[in-house]
Amino acid sequence: MTHAEHRPAAWGRWGADDERGALNRLGPQAALRGIATVREGRSIPLAVPLRAGKGPIAGRRQPLQHFMVRDGGDYAAGLTEKGFGFADDCVVLSTHGNTHLDALAHVWQDHRMWNGHSADHVTSHGARRCAIDRVGPIVTRGILVDLAAPGGPSDHDGHAISLAELVAAVGATGCTPAAGDVLLVRTGWLARWRRGEATEALWAGLAPECAEWIDEQGFVLVGADNIAVEQGPSADPADTAPLHVELIRNRGIHLMELVDLEALAATGRAEFLLMIAPLPLVGGVGSPVNPVAVL
Amino acid sequence: MTHAEHRPAAWGRWGADDERGALNRLGPQAALRGIATVREGRSIPLAVPLRAGKGPIAGRRQPLQHFMVRDGGDYAAGLTEKGFGFADDCVVLSTHGNTHLDALAHVWQDHRMWNGHSADHVTSHGARRCAIDRVGPIVTRGILVDLAAPGGPSDHDGHAISLAELVAAVGATGCTPAAGDVLLVRTGWLARWRRGEATEALWAGLAPECAEWIDEQGFVLVGADNIAVEQGPSADPADTAPLHVELIRNRGIHLMELVDLEALAATGRAEFLLMIAPLPLVGGVGSPVNPVAVL
Amino acid sequence: MTHAEHRPAAWGRWGADDERGALNRLGPQAALRGIATVREGRSIPLAVPLRAGKGPIAGRRQPLQHFMVRDGGDYAAGLTEKGFGFADDCVVLSTHGNTHLDALAHVWQDHRMWNGHSADHVTSHGARRCAIDRVGPIVTRGILVDLAAPGGPSDHDGHAISLAELVAAVGATGCTPAAGDVLLVRTGWLARWRRGEATEALWAGLAPECAEWIDEQGFVLVGADNIAVEQGPSADPADTAPLHVELIRNRGIHLMELVDLEALAATGRAEFLLMIAPLPLVGGVGSPVNPVAVL
Amino acid sequence: MTHAEHRPAAWGRWGADDERGALNRLGPQAALRGIATVREGRSIPLAVPLRAGKGPIAGRRQPLQHFMVRDGGDYAAGLTEKGFGFADDCVVLSTHGNTHLDALAHVWQDHRMWNGHSADHVTSHGARRCAIDRVGPIVTRGILVDLAAPGGPSDHDGHAISLAELVAAVGATGCTPAAGDVLLVRTGWLARWRRGEATEALWAGLAPECAEWIDEQGFVLVGADNIAVEQGPSADPADTAPLHVELIRNRGIHLMELVDLEALAATGRAEFLLMIAPLPLVGGVGSPVNPVAVL
Repeated sequence: MTHAEHRPAAWGRWGADDERGALNRLGPQAALRGIATVREGRSIPLAVPLRAGKGPIAGRRQPLQHFMVRDGGDYAAGLTEKGFGFADDCVVLSTHGNTHLDALAHVWQDHRMWNGHSADHVTSHGARRCAIDRVGPIVTRGILVDLAAPGGPSDHDGHAISLAELVAAVGATGCTPAAGDVLLVRTGWLARWRRGEATEALWAGLAPECAEWIDEQGFVLVGADNIAVEQGPSADPADTAPLHVELIRNRGIHLMELVDLEALAATGRAEFLLMIAPLPLVGGVGSPVNPVAVL
Repeated sequence: MTHAEHRPAAWGRWGADDERGALNRLGPQAALRGIATVREGRSIPLAVPLRAGKGPIAGRRQPLQHFMVRDGGDYAAGLTEKGFGFADDCVVLSTHGNTHLDALAHVWQDHRMWNGHSADHVTSHGARRCAIDRVGPIVTRGILVDLAAPGGPSDHDGHAISLAELVAAVGATGCTPAAGDVLLVRTGWLARWRRGEATEALWAGLAPECAEWIDEQGFVLVGADNIAVEQGPSADPADTAPLHVELIRNRGIHLMELVDLEALAATGRAEFLLMIAPLPLVGGVGSPVNPVAVL
Repeated sequence: MTHAEHRPAAWGRWGADDERGALNRLGPQAALRGIATVREGRSIPLAVPLRAGKGPIAGRRQPLQHFMVRDGGDYAAGLTEKGFGFADDCVVLSTHGNTHLDALAHVWQDHRMWNGHSADHVTSHGARRCAIDRVGPIVTRGILVDLAAPGGPSDHDGHAISLAELVAAVGATGCTPAAGDVLLVRTGWLARWRRGEATEALWAGLAPECAEWIDEQGFVLVGADNIAVEQGPSADPADTAPLHVELIRNRGIHLMELVDLEALAATGRAEFLLMIAPLPLVGGVGSPVNPVAVL
Repeated sequence: MTHAEHRPAAWGRWGADDERGALNRLGPQAALRGIATVREGRSIPLAVPLRAGKGPIAGRRQPLQHFMVRDGGDYAAGLTEKGFGFADDCVVLSTHGNTHLDALAHVWQDHRMWNGHSADHVTSHGARRCAIDRVGPIVTRGILVDLAAPGGPSDHDGHAISLAELVAAVGATGCTPAAGDVLLVRTGWLARWRRGEATEALWAGLAPECAEWIDEQGFVLVGADNIAVEQGPSADPADTAPLHVELIRNRGIHLMELVDLEALAATGRAEFLLMIAPLPLVGGVGSPVNPVAVL
């Protein structure tokens, strides 16, 4: 897939200075649409538990470190005899190290990010454009497609989920996507990883050809239960993360990764209220998140 | 205020092994009740922006550190000539350093936490009981009381908000609290801090006498725009954090601190759908959060 | 090996409150003795290079993380047009993660450290007794024994170097140990690890029976090119680190690990001026070090 | 002071690819010269104790964080009943945050470092040229000048120590500097800081005019008991750190800062064996150090 020899059509769609991309499609109507799907009011968290030193985690990133700055042992050891005691902790956390939301500043091509912002805006001081604190809360309808059923298109890794497969799966939900929706894709990789049948070196994911349709449907964000939403590694070694480029960079559509969709998929529900609240890390290029689906 | 010479009445209320406390009151009905308050579908985030090296932050805790592991400068410096580029980051974060939710494992008295669990369960390895990953998503109705209007009970610091003041304020909302609700209290401290009129050494907050009523109303969590929900420093120097002990330890009611209630208070709305999704940090005693109010 | 059913003979040798152990044997005469061995004045560093994310590293410890807080890329990206530029960095470092010196507070048995100090002194706040900042600079004579020559007692892993083998090797140096000396032992593990022939799961090292003789010779510290100086894992699964207990805890003799002895051993020199300067980390239980041998 | 409109004369002196600068003057003879000064064999450490959360520390850098990963409290809290116990720790450390050695990669002017190496070599991945791991151990003669005596040129802050004052002070030692020596300068700032009479906002230090003479004398490194060796802030606001540029960048002479010279100065000794062993942090731009003076 070639990228960006031409100016992406979506650039400028929401103004020359825009930093939020397709989130501009997200408004109160999307929240109401999400709310309208709620039946019993049950909530399901979608974050993988954060365990110090454990994965899954993409290459090069460091596992979580969790330090107790004060704990019960201090008191057991006689630190103080007063009745009151407390514990405090601190983490060293890669923002992309667990269930997380990528900022639009996370990727670029030819040194230009979403909407043509220069990657020069991203330095040791953080991202001055398209950072994660531009996102704000996402409250909308989520649509889940579960492609990992046995015999389904994603019951193994090393497979790219084609546009046809994605369209069919969304169609099968009976939901008609609308501007502001979030698409969640269960590839099955996380479940296979937990069973020891998959590694962080190979995962099923969406093929780049899905990008245009995803955008046309009005999705503002795509999340998946794998490392990169798109297939990994990329089918084209010369094109590291084509779907990241097509969605994030060219269309301003956010990606959310390492999403735990097991419990949600087990409900059989395809649409639900979905709430994603990234931490407003000023200048950040990602945030850990614990998305919530309300059924 | 004396604590815990007797076994708190709430211990055992949800079983001898319970670790979630009053969150046991929280169920699908609470979410539906919250959803029922939604009118236009507008979302307001309640987290203070996370800025490296900046506060507000309670004593002894270290400000956020934000490191860019890869950035646009690497490419500007010729790290690679390939078109594709990405940025990654990492944080060193005190879980209680910004807008956050305390775990029930955060405090104890006489070496016993909520429900009598021993503080021995909280060591360098984290909390084996009552940790933040026991909380799960909180989706419910939120009730906001704004006590910081000029001339109101909390238009200055060094003041404890009395039970009478709190009851009156909740009454004035026209809302009748129900089991599962969350109470948000605007003390005005954060606004005063931003204007340079307050410091982390002194803040208005709830008086300990509010605890029983809060519990009786069925609130599962209390959040505030100050450092500790309760007044700080404590009126009794021999009793470091009496409301923490009464609510968290004795009643299993969670506390959420450094909540940015400015925009929410400006709406004039008293009740709304509220979603709080702590990161499932296994063994953690707190989590940064970005709560979302949907109006 | 049984430990500490009896009070170790060395406890109290330098006073009931002593925290420095056998370092009390170290004085100006030891430095002069070390200096007397210097011939040409050539220096050899003994630290393994510290590489972010790389080992070797003992289990459970996290590899180094190295963050650039400011770098040349910031300027290439146009952060500033001023002529002057600088770089700054920050590390997240396990003190025992690379070439390092253990503090006497690093280990205990039956909750008592060196000289009977209670392990209660070691809490989240650090070590109040026997911490690494008690050590100070070590300037003395070093004696190197290279047991890893082909066919030698340590040309493979999974082997404990016996007292007889150690005594013979020291004898073969022609040096007579004196009070204040440091003993360096080349087991060959690091070289084998670098060749991919060894892992952090198994390493040759000294047998616990060596402890008494080491103490009698007057050595103040033992260093080795492996993870624990002693054999690993311990020959007795019920006795995790017997030599640590016998040397550090019972005799106040420090241990230094992951020492790179390759270049030093290649010189064929057995004695040299040795300087070890741990960082004075107040309350720390270890320090990275870059020891220097001067020949 | 103008910088670098011309190619510095020292560039290329030790080859076009050199990364060690004036350290090339340092060899075995320097170590022997240092050793020759030793009289009684007494060692004095020159590092300021590293205390978590404490200074002194230069602006923008974060104080040390020290985390106990395992401690005695864990055992007091019943983590395990086995006899053996251990403690482990981890630090989050700014390499320039305490007594430290700057790498030659630490500063540049017009995007060129020492010997013309481009600052493009310094990215998020660290410094590919002139990093701290190029330094190696420094074992040489140290010459101390104490300018902070009452009435002396540096008994207050806000003062630049002139070339004339420096030359006179070195002359007064009776030592004739030789190629390979290290110059240590006591400005008195640290002592004043400890007494609460100085802050990190203003410190006495060397004037930039000292650079050429320092180089001509053959010094390989200059250390001082202040934040930057040179006066701070710079006398010329348009020239941030002129001595850094003249010494590090133009002449390849290393700087070492926040050196605790109090005990050494109290000996009255002007020359001594000096050992500085930076951690071989690959790609680092600084290292904490605990230099040792042997008298």
